[in-house]
Amino acid sequence: MRAGSKLPGTRLMAETLNIHRKTVVAAYDELKSQGWTDSIPAKGTFVCSALPVIEKQPFTNNQLLNSEKNVSGFSFTRKKHLEFTELKRERGSIYLGDGLPDSRLSPIKEIAVEYRNVLKLNYNQDLGYDSIYGNLYLREALLSYLNETRGLSINIDQILITRGSQMGIYLASRLIVSDAKELIIGETNYKAAIDAFNETGAKIYTVEIDKNGIITDQIESLCKKKNVSAVYVTSHHHHPTTVSLSPERRMHLLALAKTYQFAIIEDDYAYDFHYSNAPILPLASNDVHGNVIYIGSFSKTIAPAIRIGYLIAPKDFVKEAAQLRRIIDRQGDVLLERTIASMIKEDLLKRHSKKLIKIYKTRRDLFCKLLKENLGNYLNFDIPDGGMAVWVLLDKKYNWDLIKKMAERSGLIINDWRRYDPFFKGHNGLRMGFSSLNEEEIRKSVSILKNVFQKLN
Amino acid sequence: MRAGSKLPGTRLMAETLNIHRKTVVAAYDELKSQGWTDSIPAKGTFVCSALPVIEKQPFTNNQLLNSEKNVSGFSFTRKKHLEFTELKRERGSIYLGDGLPDSRLSPIKEIAVEYRNVLKLNYNQDLGYDSIYGNLYLREALLSYLNETRGLSINIDQILITRGSQMGIYLASRLIVSDAKELIIGETNYKAAIDAFNETGAKIYTVEIDKNGIITDQIESLCKKKNVSAVYVTSHHHHPTTVSLSPERRMHLLALAKTYQFAIIEDDYAYDFHYSNAPILPLASNDVHGNVIYIGSFSKTIAPAIRIGYLIAPKDFVKEAAQLRRIIDRQGDVLLERTIASMIKEDLLKRHSKKLIKIYKTRRDLFCKLLKENLGNYLNFDIPDGGMAVWVLLDKKYNWDLIKKMAERSGLIINDWRRYDPFFKGHNGLRMGFSSLNEEEIRKSVSILKNVFQKLN
Repeated sequence: MRAGSKLPGTRLMAETLNIHRKTVVAAYDELKSQGWTDSIPAKGTFVCSALPVIEKQPFTNNQLLNSEKNVSGFSFTRKKHLEFTELKRERGSIYLGDGLPDSRLSPIKEIAVEYRNVLKLNYNQDLGYDSIYGNLYLREALLSYLNETRGLSINIDQILITRGSQMGIYLASRLIVSDAKELIIGETNYKAAIDAFNETGAKIYTVEIDKNGIITDQIESLCKKKNVSAVYVTSHHHHPTTVSLSPERRMHLLALAKTYQFAIIEDDYAYDFHYSNAPILPLASNDVHGNVIYIGSFSKTIAPAIRIGYLIAPKDFVKEAAQLRRIIDRQGDVLLERTIASMIKEDLLKRHSKKLIKIYKTRRDLFCKLLKENLGNYLNFDIPDGGMAVWVLLDKKYNWDLIKKMAERSGLIINDWRRYDPFFKGHNGLRMGFSSLNEEEIRKSVSILKNVFQKLN
Repeated sequence: MRAGSKLPGTRLMAETLNIHRKTVVAAYDELKSQGWTDSIPAKGTFVCSALPVIEKQPFTNNQLLNSEKNVSGFSFTRKKHLEFTELKRERGSIYLGDGLPDSRLSPIKEIAVEYRNVLKLNYNQDLGYDSIYGNLYLREALLSYLNETRGLSINIDQILITRGSQMGIYLASRLIVSDAKELIIGETNYKAAIDAFNETGAKIYTVEIDKNGIITDQIESLCKKKNVSAVYVTSHHHHPTTVSLSPERRMHLLALAKTYQFAIIEDDYAYDFHYSNAPILPLASNDVHGNVIYIGSFSKTIAPAIRIGYLIAPKDFVKEAAQLRRIIDRQGDVLLERTIASMIKEDLLKRHSKKLIKIYKTRRDLFCKLLKENLGNYLNFDIPDGGMAVWVLLDKKYNWDLIKKMAERSGLIINDWRRYDPFFKGHNGLRMGFSSLNEEEIRKSVSILKNVFQKLN
C-alpha cells in the first residue's frame, strides 16, 4: 500500500480474510506500534506518509566488495602460550574427555521451569543493570548452601558471583600474582589455570604432588627462600592426578599461609563428587586468618554451558575482585542467576547432585574394572576416590601419540597428553574421563583401546 | 524407616494415601534414582542398608565459630582507579540515569518463548563446552544481521561473541595497549572504557571532541610525534556528549589508521538508536586495510541483563581475542546465545528495535522540550540525533553536587557529574537519560529540577 492510503476497517478485513476480528486488531496495533501506520480518531488507520524506515548512510562510494580480512593492519600481542585448538567432534565417535559432566543428565526440565517462573514473575525491573557482586537472591541462596554443604561460616559480603571457576582464577591471579609476583603450584596441574597465571605474569614455582596431594613441606622450604604471594591448590581430586589433599596437609598449608602471609587459591571444583567416603571440608572452612580464596562453580553439577561460579574470600578482597570484574564483564546474567538461586532454594540442586553421584560412581567402577582387566599390562592407575576421571600412566615403552591416532581411526577420541605435562616432566600420563559415558560407551571405549594395544604387540 | 526395611507395594501405598498409583511409582523411582532404596525383583523395594548420605569430614576440632572476615591475611593490588559505588535505588524515586534502556519494554515474552524452544529442541548435547568463539548459530545469525544492518562484509572467522561491549573493550585493550602502549581517546569520554584502558596499563592521550565527533586533525598531529597503537572512538552518539562522527572524519580516521598502522577500537553501542536521519555506516563497513575492531552488544536493544555482545575484527586478531577470552571466562552462555540467534533469525530483534526507536524518539522530544521551556535559563544542551540521553551543561554559577542533593530529597536521582569529567576539565556537564522514563516520569523529573532551581534563586 502507498503512504497515506487508508487501511480497511478491522471488521471488513476480518471478514475478507475469514479470521477473528481480534486477530486483525492485534495486527493493526502491532503495525502502529512499529510506526508503519497512524490512526486518526473517527477516520481510520492510515499508512504513515513518513515511514520509519531508517536507511543506512554510506560515507564513501568505494564500498568494500571483497573483504575477507585475515590479517590486521595494526600490532597486537600474540600470546603463544595461550594456543588452544578446539576439539572436533565427529558424529558417532566416543569422546573420552577430561572428565566432563554428561550433558544428557543435565536437569534441563528443571532449568526450563525455573527460568520461565523467573520471567513470569514479571521481574522486568531486574533486566536492568544489577550488582557487580552478582544477583542478591543467588548470593543469599549460595550463602546457606555453602555454609551447609561445605562447613563455611561466611557472610554475604564475602561472595562474588563469577562466570565459571575460570573467571575466579583469572581475577585472583590478576590481583595477587601479576607482574612477576611469586606463586606456587603443584606439578602436574590444570592447564587452564596455568594459562591464567602465565597470562597475568606470575612467576611460577612448582612443587611435587603425591598421594596426599601437594607436598606442603616443599612449599615451606620455598617460602623460606622466596617471597611467595600465593599457593594454588585443588583440595579434592587434584587435576589431573585426582588425589585429595590430606587433613594434615590442609592444616599445615593454613599454618604456612598465616606465617608467610600468602593467599591460598583453593579450587574445589570436584567437592560434590565424592564416592568412597566423606569429602574433607575445604580449607576455606577453617580460614581463621583470612588467607583463603575459595573458588567453585555449577558447571560440573548442572552443565558446563551454565556459566555460574563463585569466589569466596575476605570482604576487602571480594570488593576489589568485583571492581575488576566490572571492567571485564560488568555483571552476570541476572535471569540465569535467579534461576540457579531458585534451584538451590528448592533443593533441586542437591537432589540432582545425589543422582549424579550414584550414576558416576557406577561408571567409575565399571570403567576401572574393565581398564584393569583388559589393559592392566600397559596402563597403571589408582581408582580415584571421586571426581570424573582416572589418571592413567602409560608404560614408557609406548607413547600416547600413536595410541591416540590409532584409537581415533576406530572412533575413540582421547585427549592430547601434552596438556597434562605442561612442564615437560615426561609423566607419560593421560586423564580419562568416565563421567560423560554411559555403560555401552564405556565398554566400547575400553574395547577399542584393547584392540589398539593388541595391534601394537 | 529403618535401613533394610521393606516399602509397601505401590498399589497398597496408593490406596492408603488415596493418590494415583502412577504418582507412587514415580516417587519410588525417584527414591531409587537418588540411591535411598533398592528394588529386588519379585521381592519388592527396600530401604538401602548403605545409605548414600555423604557426610562432611572436618579436618580439625577447632571449627571456626565467628568468622566475619573483613580483612585478608595476604597482599593484593588495590586499584584505586576502579573505585565504583553501586547505585542505591529507592522505591518511588525516579532515576534519571545515564541513558539506560527501559526494562519495562524488554521483549520478555519473546525471550521466554525462544528460550523454551531452545531447551525443548533437546539440545542437551549443547550443554557441554562450546566454541570459545561463541555459539555457531549466533555467529551465523549475526553475520547476516551485521552485514545487512551495518553494511559490513565480514565472514564468520571475524566474529567473536563476547559478554557485553565491556568485554570487547577489555580484550582489545589488553591485547593492543597494555604495558604503556599509546592510545588516543576523545575527551570527555565513557568512564567504563577509560577504566579498562587504565587497568591494562595503556598510556592515554586525549584529543578534543566537537560537534562532528573526535577531532581527527588532532589525532594526526599526535601520530606524527608518538607511536600510537590505537584510537578509541564512538562513531554514533559519543559518550557522554552524544555527537556523531562525521563522514569526512570517518574517512580521515581510516586513512590515518592505514598510514600509522594503528587499531581503531570502534564502539558503536548506539547505532540502532537514530531518530533524525539515517545512521552513518560504521568505520568497520569500509575497513579495507584491517584496522577496525568493531564492538557492539544487545544490552541496549534487549536489556542490560542480557549480556551478549560481539567483537568484529580481522581474523588473526579475533583468534587471539578468543584465546584470551578462554582464560578469563571460557565461553558464553550457550542457551542464551541460541535464544538471541533465534530472535535475530525470526526478525524479532529488528521489529523490537523499530518499536523502541518510535518510543524513545517521543521521549527525547518531550524531555528536550520540557527541559528547554522550564530550565533553559540554567541549562544548555543540543537535541541529540539519537541515543538515549542528553548532554546537559550547567551554567557555571551552579554546581551539580548541590542540585543532586536537593533533587534526591524530592525523589529524583541524578548521576554523579564526576564520571563525566574523568580528566578534571571542568565541563560542568551531566548526562541525562530520557529513554528509561515514561511520559509521566519525564514530566515529574523536569518539574522536580525546576523546583530545585527556583529554590536556588
